Amino acid sequence: MALWYDEVTDDAVRFGLKVERTLFMGKSEFQTVSVIETTAFGKALLLDDLWMTSERDEHVYHELIAHVPCTTAKKLERVLIIGGGDGGTAREVLRHPEVRHVDMVEIDGMVIEASKQHLGTIGTAWNDPRLNVVVGDGIAWVKDPSVDPYDVVIVDGSDPVGPAVGLFNRDFYAGCHSKLKDGGCFITQSESPIMLKDTHLEMIRTIADVFDEEHPLYGPVPLYPSGAWSWTFASKNVDRFAIHPERAERIEPTAKYWNRDIHRGAFALPNHIRLALQGK
Amino acid sequence: MALWYDEVTDDAVRFGLKVERTLFMGKSEFQTVSVIETTAFGKALLLDDLWMTSERDEHVYHELIAHVPCTTAKKLERVLIIGGGDGGTAREVLRHPEVRHVDMVEIDGMVIEASKQHLGTIGTAWNDPRLNVVVGDGIAWVKDPSVDPYDVVIVDGSDPVGPAVGLFNRDFYAGCHSKLKDGGCFITQSESPIMLKDTHLEMIRTIADVFDEEHPLYGPVPLYPSGAWSWTFASKNVDRFAIHPERAERIEPTAKYWNRDIHRGAFALPNHIRLALQGK
Repeated sequence: MALWYDEVTDDAVRFGLKVERTLFMGKSEFQTVSVIETTAFGKALLLDDLWMTSERDEHVYHELIAHVPCTTAKKLERVLIIGGGDGGTAREVLRHPEVRHVDMVEIDGMVIEASKQHLGTIGTAWNDPRLNVVVGDGIAWVKDPSVDPYDVVIVDGSDPVGPAVGLFNRDFYAGCHSKLKDGGCFITQSESPIMLKDTHLEMIRTIADVFDEEHPLYGPVPLYPSGAWSWTFASKNVDRFAIHPERAERIEPTAKYWNRDIHRGAFALPNHIRLALQGK
Repeated sequence: MALWYDEVTDDAVRFGLKVERTLFMGKSEFQTVSVIETTAFGKALLLDDLWMTSERDEHVYHELIAHVPCTTAKKLERVLIIGGGDGGTAREVLRHPEVRHVDMVEIDGMVIEASKQHLGTIGTAWNDPRLNVVVGDGIAWVKDPSVDPYDVVIVDGSDPVGPAVGLFNRDFYAGCHSKLKDGGCFITQSESPIMLKDTHLEMIRTIADVFDEEHPLYGPVPLYPSGAWSWTFASKNVDRFAIHPERAERIEPTAKYWNRDIHRGAFALPNHIRLALQGK
């Protein structure tokens, strides 16, 4: 008997994987946390029954969200990751030797524990001495006056339901902006331009309002609704195409998805998004 | 009671859509042909139970496969489409007023008839006097010495099983090459770089062998396995980035996906594909 798990979107579209076994099922104070082993995509993390990441396709998401800001920020010493409990984003950020300190603020300790226990191929940098893991609220963190600013701020949160809902509003982006140094870069995942187009456009417009710039970028994440995903980049006086070559040359020989051509190409706007942002 | 149809890949991954009703079910001498109305993606065509196209996501596929060669070919008078029975590729090609004649050679007349009857929003150009629809074998067509060469040759076929299997070998590409004028462009769909990576790489290498160049490009097609799809472009002395601006300017105001940035960005190779092609 084959077991499958399908994530259903809009009660009308589903993406499913055959399941070999369940590795972890828990209920934290924020959400349900599951790790399952799938036949085709390896081990996978789900939060509130939504696919979050898998061993097979995680590299696209984690390489884009880490290397787009980390190869363009003027300096690269202090990095903030909000969310990112599976450890994949921290792993990619810490591949840059210039990084001296990473604060990773994940609200749900159970996600970190389940990932450490079962997703060791994704989170390979937990023991890096530069990584400071905080189980806490990222929204409060970026408003805390005692927190020093960063060169890169990465929002690696889940969807605008449940504990991540506060990661999608103007106040939160303003907090991120206030914690960014001049020459610093901000990036957040920003949903599917196909299945969640309205949310995607709303996020871009809100980020534009706070940062006075907004640069969506796109890439394939088979695990997510429609398989087409987006991130949105903004900065304080950084040219997103001015990639530091020595940083890129260290990453490219072993990256699975990111390289300089992908970086530049990812910023191309699908025409329906370009027209929508122009109000056409 | 909700009805769904799921396409299953490798017996371990599935993409499903909720179905409102069945519009057409037939069995031709080549394959089964179905048109169903889905809740989220509108009307959709399936061949041998594999998703082929839908009203919601067809524009990415058809705009890329048409406008990448049609905006770069030196002249744009004669175009050959092999396959393309839903009519979407012909529709996009015929948006270019320089096109004087299109031969569309589709092996399965039932696909054309079902599409004309039920997918009129996709195939909107059936009555264009420049379009010559031939129900016949594309493999024989490109070997026929009485067929004059083309400015653009587009292979809009299905997967390397069933009637399309002959569209994936060296002999067929050599036929396409022989029917291309100097300054002409060739493009074919070339499978998923994620779910069908070996087939994808094999196609690229075979095309390289025939054309002495090979340029894969990538884009999101939610309906296809993994949602990440590819096409491969080759030419006789054409720079794939040298887009004719007057052709682009006519297409961009109403295109849903293609524009000049997307065109250039689509050619960025995911790093795992770049490394594989370099033999690393």
